[in-house]
Amino acid sequence: MLFYDLTKADMPIYEYLYNCIKNDILYGKIAPGEKLPSKRNFAKNHGISTITVQNAYDQLISEGYITTVPKRGYYAAVMEKIPVFRQTSNIELDINIPKEPPHFAFDFASNRSITENFPFSVWAKVMRETISLREKELLDISPCCGILQLREAIAGHLSSFRGMGIDPNQIVVGAGTEYLYGILIDLLGKEKVYGIENPGYTKLKQIYGINDVRIKEVDMDENGIVVEYLRNTDIKVAHISPTHHFPTGITMPISRRYEILAWANESADRYIIEDDYDSEFRINGKPIPTLQSIDACEKVIYMNTFSKSLASTIRISYMVLPRHLANLYYEKMSFMSCTVSTFEQYTLAEFIKQGYFEKHINRMRLHYGRKRTQVLEIIRKVFKENECKIIENDSGLHFVMELKCDVSDEKIKRELLAQNIRISSVMDYYRGVKYDRHQFILNYSNINVEKLEDALVKLKKAMF
Amino acid sequence: MLFYDLTKADMPIYEYLYNCIKNDILYGKIAPGEKLPSKRNFAKNHGISTITVQNAYDQLISEGYITTVPKRGYYAAVMEKIPVFRQTSNIELDINIPKEPPHFAFDFASNRSITENFPFSVWAKVMRETISLREKELLDISPCCGILQLREAIAGHLSSFRGMGIDPNQIVVGAGTEYLYGILIDLLGKEKVYGIENPGYTKLKQIYGINDVRIKEVDMDENGIVVEYLRNTDIKVAHISPTHHFPTGITMPISRRYEILAWANESADRYIIEDDYDSEFRINGKPIPTLQSIDACEKVIYMNTFSKSLASTIRISYMVLPRHLANLYYEKMSFMSCTVSTFEQYTLAEFIKQGYFEKHINRMRLHYGRKRTQVLEIIRKVFKENECKIIENDSGLHFVMELKCDVSDEKIKRELLAQNIRISSVMDYYRGVKYDRHQFILNYSNINVEKLEDALVKLKKAMF
Repeated sequence: MLFYDLTKADMPIYEYLYNCIKNDILYGKIAPGEKLPSKRNFAKNHGISTITVQNAYDQLISEGYITTVPKRGYYAAVMEKIPVFRQTSNIELDINIPKEPPHFAFDFASNRSITENFPFSVWAKVMRETISLREKELLDISPCCGILQLREAIAGHLSSFRGMGIDPNQIVVGAGTEYLYGILIDLLGKEKVYGIENPGYTKLKQIYGINDVRIKEVDMDENGIVVEYLRNTDIKVAHISPTHHFPTGITMPISRRYEILAWANESADRYIIEDDYDSEFRINGKPIPTLQSIDACEKVIYMNTFSKSLASTIRISYMVLPRHLANLYYEKMSFMSCTVSTFEQYTLAEFIKQGYFEKHINRMRLHYGRKRTQVLEIIRKVFKENECKIIENDSGLHFVMELKCDVSDEKIKRELLAQNIRISSVMDYYRGVKYDRHQFILNYSNINVEKLEDALVKLKKAMF
Repeated sequence: MLFYDLTKADMPIYEYLYNCIKNDILYGKIAPGEKLPSKRNFAKNHGISTITVQNAYDQLISEGYITTVPKRGYYAAVMEKIPVFRQTSNIELDINIPKEPPHFAFDFASNRSITENFPFSVWAKVMRETISLREKELLDISPCCGILQLREAIAGHLSSFRGMGIDPNQIVVGAGTEYLYGILIDLLGKEKVYGIENPGYTKLKQIYGINDVRIKEVDMDENGIVVEYLRNTDIKVAHISPTHHFPTGITMPISRRYEILAWANESADRYIIEDDYDSEFRINGKPIPTLQSIDACEKVIYMNTFSKSLASTIRISYMVLPRHLANLYYEKMSFMSCTVSTFEQYTLAEFIKQGYFEKHINRMRLHYGRKRTQVLEIIRKVFKENECKIIENDSGLHFVMELKCDVSDEKIKRELLAQNIRISSVMDYYRGVKYDRHQFILNYSNINVEKLEDALVKLKKAMF
């Protein structure tokens, strides 16, 4: 006769019984096929109600541990493969989570935007307003491409800020550009060869790698990707950042832009992905028109993100699809859910519409503009004109210092690293046979200006 | 000599000049290679400062519209391919955005959870607290797998609610299960054949389709997917929902669970995806242990989502990876950004830790339990026991009505549709040669109970 000590039960009795019987079955104390006591007997023996036993048995039946034969009773199930049951508890496994990136005394290359500039209180205010005013809409399901209000706000921003005339229905909102690349590759086709700039942003290669598509690297000249090289390959989709290329800082001039549009127009299955990742931070002058806005033939997919312009923790990016790709997207992918919550979509829509986004960008441009001037002054204090040439296009948050020296790039990097200073050369982002260009990246968005002079002095010492 | 009417300028003069000259170049009024007036002359002629002209020329130079030859002056660039410039404006394109789904007088099959049950005020309160208290953390970058606080909260929930003992570092948080499937397929391999249940959830096939992997459908018996059928295929990954299968409502008994674990263990490259999408809404009894918790050999990937248990607009899902896959994930994918914003991650972490999630689930179970009882009573009022058999397992938010009739499933659906009532049969989710099972789905989560009797009466009429 089964008997369990109910005084030990630290949960409802039926649940305790269920656990005891299940364990006895799993550990073999109750043999497969063995008859269990009747509900009435079991209850009597334990001084509990038959309902309680019934509940425990029902649970065991529904999970298949025991079976019932009408008018005969309950039997332990005959199960062929019963491994030893693993006790559940809080466990800690030896999983190799990635290490924290090393901390440098000075880092010329860090591209993390400084979070202290995020307009937290305004964002929080708009979010609070959104929560109070939009209870109903917040719980409505977002269309796959994002809520209309946000897409309208983005279209308005692109119109006033980039001179782009687009329909909000061309916009697809998603949780980060990495996610959107995945969608876009599905739309354009995985069998296509994708061309990326060489040198270029390392992460791009990883993203295309994860998406299992073939990529080819195309060399650049001083105006950007060389269209002739592109033409000599079987590349169908050219992924470029004409506004401000990383790491070279090149802004593609208008003639090259038309050349690459002409390349795309030579074949129906060619496309251009225009990665406009930091166009908001152009410091001087009017922004250069996007490829998208001079594309008359539905060849350009424009991409941008608020993770860069607002805060990296805000995972909202978007792409602008040509009309035929927008239609393909709706046809093929409208079953998918939008990856950004409505809370954040409405908050961002209001943030843009109420003018806070523009204000934030203007404030940041002013901030970065001042910082840029300071940085350039410090460079001129340390280096003579002929020792260090600044290659810049008034765009974005980094520029290139070309050093006049005979020491190899590698040696300079090593010597600085020995002093806990990180510096990257343009060649670090070049794939192929490397040669010394003596070009080093200065990403000033996140550097401590007060430490810059000291770091530059050390850089200068490493040059000789 | 170029002359522009500056009284028409509705923007800064330099910008206006820039626009005028650019357009004249693009429209051919200024020929390629043509010399432009000197800054001084141009300024004098227009009564403006040379700085203004300089700014306009600089912008044109940086965009490549004009070039400068030192000591000689400025020239329109020679560009080979200049299409007609498209004027930007607010436009509306004929994009075929998906139509709103049709509205039915009654819908037996809708699986939208009712939003009125979402604990909006509590969620808003926690979000407000998060915004006030966590300013610093909110702007820190989330690890690729999600912030630790949320993963700990989920591990705690899974431990108390599902008896699962897992390490928070096994959890990967992402914006929706669709997104996580993509990640998982990348981890397990795209060359593998994925097996899904037949009948089964339609969207799954679409998701695997988008991810470009081969799927095979495996027939089920009354205990779930048939392992013998699985064994006869080259399927490497079985995607199943053992807790509560859609549409059949089957809960896989423990013996079948061990059988399928045994199948997975027969080969190193076999895996099981355990889709636990609505386990929180089990109405009666203790939830059945997950496959994950009885898997001793790192074969099961557990998936669940808060979009179902909280609100579909909250895009937070997660998966629990076996240790070796977690390591592979960190090794291969830690360059990726987490797709959920830190705002929502911290809010959800607090929502769970402060016990609100548990309260919400308990409240919803009570709510759905009552609704289920009502629904069953109404069915019994309209149908006799032998006319309509209820197939259910006390799990989840739908069950199956098996009708005793000779009329085809299609005819019943058509007749109801003519009265603007939608009903789905289990066979609608079956791929292969269909036959009449007379099994229809009743998803009661979102139905209007007051209209149910009328709809059932119409269903009964259609049976004869």
